Amino acid sequence: MTLENLFASRTQHMRASEIRELLKLLEQPGILSFAGGIPDPALFPSDAFAKAYASALTPERQAGSLQYSVSEGYLPLRKWIADRMALFGVACSVENVLITSGSQQALDYLGKLFLSPNDTALVRWPTYMGALGAFRAYEPRFDRLSLGANRPVQDLKDAAQASGGSVKFAYLSSDFSNPTGETVDRQGREQLLDLAEALNSAVIEDAAYQELRFDGDFVPPILAIELERKGHIDACRTIYCGSFSKTLSPGLRVGWVVAAQPVIQQLVLTKQASDLHSPTINQIVIHDVAARMFETHLAKLREHYGSRRDAMLSALERHMPNGVAWTKPEGGMFVWLTLPEGMNGADLLADALRTEQVAFVPGAAFFPDGSGENTLRLNFSSPNIEQINEGMLRLGRVLRGSMN
Amino acid sequence: MTLENLFASRTQHMRASEIRELLKLLEQPGILSFAGGIPDPALFPSDAFAKAYASALTPERQAGSLQYSVSEGYLPLRKWIADRMALFGVACSVENVLITSGSQQALDYLGKLFLSPNDTALVRWPTYMGALGAFRAYEPRFDRLSLGANRPVQDLKDAAQASGGSVKFAYLSSDFSNPTGETVDRQGREQLLDLAEALNSAVIEDAAYQELRFDGDFVPPILAIELERKGHIDACRTIYCGSFSKTLSPGLRVGWVVAAQPVIQQLVLTKQASDLHSPTINQIVIHDVAARMFETHLAKLREHYGSRRDAMLSALERHMPNGVAWTKPEGGMFVWLTLPEGMNGADLLADALRTEQVAFVPGAAFFPDGSGENTLRLNFSSPNIEQINEGMLRLGRVLRGSMN
Repeated sequence: MTLENLFASRTQHMRASEIRELLKLLEQPGILSFAGGIPDPALFPSDAFAKAYASALTPERQAGSLQYSVSEGYLPLRKWIADRMALFGVACSVENVLITSGSQQALDYLGKLFLSPNDTALVRWPTYMGALGAFRAYEPRFDRLSLGANRPVQDLKDAAQASGGSVKFAYLSSDFSNPTGETVDRQGREQLLDLAEALNSAVIEDAAYQELRFDGDFVPPILAIELERKGHIDACRTIYCGSFSKTLSPGLRVGWVVAAQPVIQQLVLTKQASDLHSPTINQIVIHDVAARMFETHLAKLREHYGSRRDAMLSALERHMPNGVAWTKPEGGMFVWLTLPEGMNGADLLADALRTEQVAFVPGAAFFPDGSGENTLRLNFSSPNIEQINEGMLRLGRVLRGSMN
Repeated sequence: MTLENLFASRTQHMRASEIRELLKLLEQPGILSFAGGIPDPALFPSDAFAKAYASALTPERQAGSLQYSVSEGYLPLRKWIADRMALFGVACSVENVLITSGSQQALDYLGKLFLSPNDTALVRWPTYMGALGAFRAYEPRFDRLSLGANRPVQDLKDAAQASGGSVKFAYLSSDFSNPTGETVDRQGREQLLDLAEALNSAVIEDAAYQELRFDGDFVPPILAIELERKGHIDACRTIYCGSFSKTLSPGLRVGWVVAAQPVIQQLVLTKQASDLHSPTINQIVIHDVAARMFETHLAKLREHYGSRRDAMLSALERHMPNGVAWTKPEGGMFVWLTLPEGMNGADLLADALRTEQVAFVPGAAFFPDGSGENTLRLNFSSPNIEQINEGMLRLGRVLRGSMN
C-alpha cells in the first residue's frame, strides 16, 4: 500500500527544491552565510510586540483576540492598510483589502484563482522561488516576461494557446526584487501595463520589499500607475501583494492583497475554504504595532540595512575579480552577481563551502528553465558589516581560484 | 475589463454559501442564536496565553518567536502532539506530524494532495460544510459514504470511474461530528477501514472535537484501529486531522496532521508553497499553554459544555412536539434535529427569526446534494443554560406553529 499512487497530478510539480534542501545545511555554525533571505532578528520591535500581545489579552479584549474572526481580516488593520496605500497613490477602501498569512499565501491564492493546468504565467527570468513554487501547484506553463522587449504580443498569445491555455497574469517582484535587488522603473511599469492590456491578463505586483528603500527616488506601485489611467481601483487589473514580514516580523505571518472588489471577493471565498482566516490575535497585534511605530521602525531598518548594502557594494568593489558584475540595489535585502559565461554557481558553492566556508544561493534556482547558471544571490540583511567584509574577501578568493 | 473572465474553472465551485451569508445576520443583538459553532470565549485560558506570549517575547526568546521558521512546524509542539497521540493508541514520531493553520488548512491541503477534477470524495450525508468547501476547490465529485450499507464496492468504483476519476478518499468527522453530534462507533470505523482497503483509497479522519467527550466510552481513532492492524503508521492509509481550536483557542489557528511519512512530506511541500509555515509565535505559545494546563483546561471545558448539552437535551424533551427527533451527543458542540418529512429548515428559520427571534442552521447546507431539508443544527457551546432553556421553548413554539 502506498498512498503516493493516489496523489493528484499537480503533486508532480511540487518537488522538494534541491536548493532549499541545500540551504538547510548552509545555516550551520561556522559557515559565513549570505544564502538566507531573512530579517535581522536583532531589529525586531519585540518590546512593542510584547506590549501589544499583553494589551490584546486583557480581560476586556481577550475574547475578541482568541476567537474565530472573519475571513476578510481585522477591520482596523484593513483600514490602516487602505490609508497606507493611499500614501503611495493607491486610493482604495477596506473592501479592496484582504488580510493573508504573509504574501506567500496571496501568491498561492492568486495561482488558485487564475491558473488552470497549462495556462501561462509570465514571470521574469529570474523570479522569486516561492512564487514559482506557489504557482506550480496549479500546473501552469511559465513564459518569460521581458519588459520593453520586441517580442510581439501575438507571439506570447499564440504560445500560450498552443500550450492549451491563455496568459492569465504577469507576476513581478517590483521593488528591490528577490532575487536581483533591482527595481522596475516607471517606464517598465507602464510597459507592463500596456502588455497586460494587450494580453487582457492580470498583473500580480509583489511589493514585499517596497518599504525598504534606502535611497533613490520613489517609484509608484504598478497599481498606482494603473489607477492614474483608469480612475478607480475596481477598474484595475493589477493585484498588489504586501507584507509585514520584512518590516515588522515574518513570524506572525501577516500580509495583504489590494485589488478590485470582484478579485477580493473571490479571494475571501478562497481563504474561507483554505484556513477560515489569518490568526485573529496576530492581526490585532500587527495593527497595534504598525499604528504605534511603523514609520520610526522603518527608519531604523532603512538605516541598518542601508549601511549593510553599502558595506557589501564597497566590499564587492574591493574583492571581486574582473568579469564579475553585480546589481546596485536602492533597497531590499539582496545583491545579484553575474559571473563570466561558463561558470557554474552550484559548483562554485561547493568550492566556497569547502575552501572558504562561505555560502550563497546559486542563481539557477530562480529560473523556471534552470538557466542562469552563472549567477548567484547574496543577502545583506542577516550578516553584520564585519561578516560582510570578511565574506566578500573569501568569495573573491574562491572566484579568483575558479577563474584561474 | 473584468478579471472574472480570467478566473480558473475551479472558482465556479467556490461560490459564497447562502447559509454563511445568512449566518452573519444571525449574530445580531436580540437574536437568540444556536447557529454558531464557536467556543465560549469566557472559557478561553487567557491568563495562560498572556503569560505564554510574554515568555515568548523575552529578549532571549524573541528572535526565535518573531522569525521565519520551518514548514513542518515547531519541533517541541510536534513532539507534544506525538506524545498526546500515543495516549489514544497512535504511536508515531515527530516525522509523522505537520502543524497546520487550524484543521481547515489540513482539509484544504488534503484536497490539493489527492483530488484531480472529477475524482471522487466519499463523504457522509450530512458533512461539515467547511470540508465540502475545501474539497470543492479541487473540483471533485462527491459520493455518499454509508457505513455498513450494502452498496457493493464495485458500484462505488464504477461510479467514480464513470465520472472520470477514482475514489481518492473517504472523509469522516469521527467524534461528536459537526453537524450531527454523533460518533462513529468502533464497528463503523472498522467498516470504513475495510471499505478503504477494498477501494484502495485514503481515509481522512477529522478529529476536531475528539477531546470534548463528556461521557460514554472512548472510541479509538480510526488511525489507532488501523495501526492495530498494520503495526506501523507508515503503512497506514488514515490521515488524522487535529486542532487546538475547540480546546485552547481558534484565534491562534493551530492544528495538525498525523499520517504516514510520505504523506507528511508531500504536505510539507504543499505548506512551503502555500504559506511557508504557520505563525512561529503562535505555535510556541500553544505548546507552552498545552504543556502547562491541557488536561485541567479540558476538564473545565467538558464540565461546562457537558452541562449545556444536558440542558439542551432536557429542554428539547420538554419543548419539542411529537414527530421531531434529535441526536444525543456524548460530546462536542452540536445537536441535530430531524423534523417530520416535508418540513423545510430554511422556511422554519425565516419563521423563527420573525416570530421568536431564535436562530439555527438549516441542515440542507451540510448535504452535498442539498437534500436534508427537514433537518437543522443546534449549537450548545456558545449559549448559556438560561439561553438554552429559553431558546428551546421558543423553537418548540415555532415548530408547533409550523406543524399545525
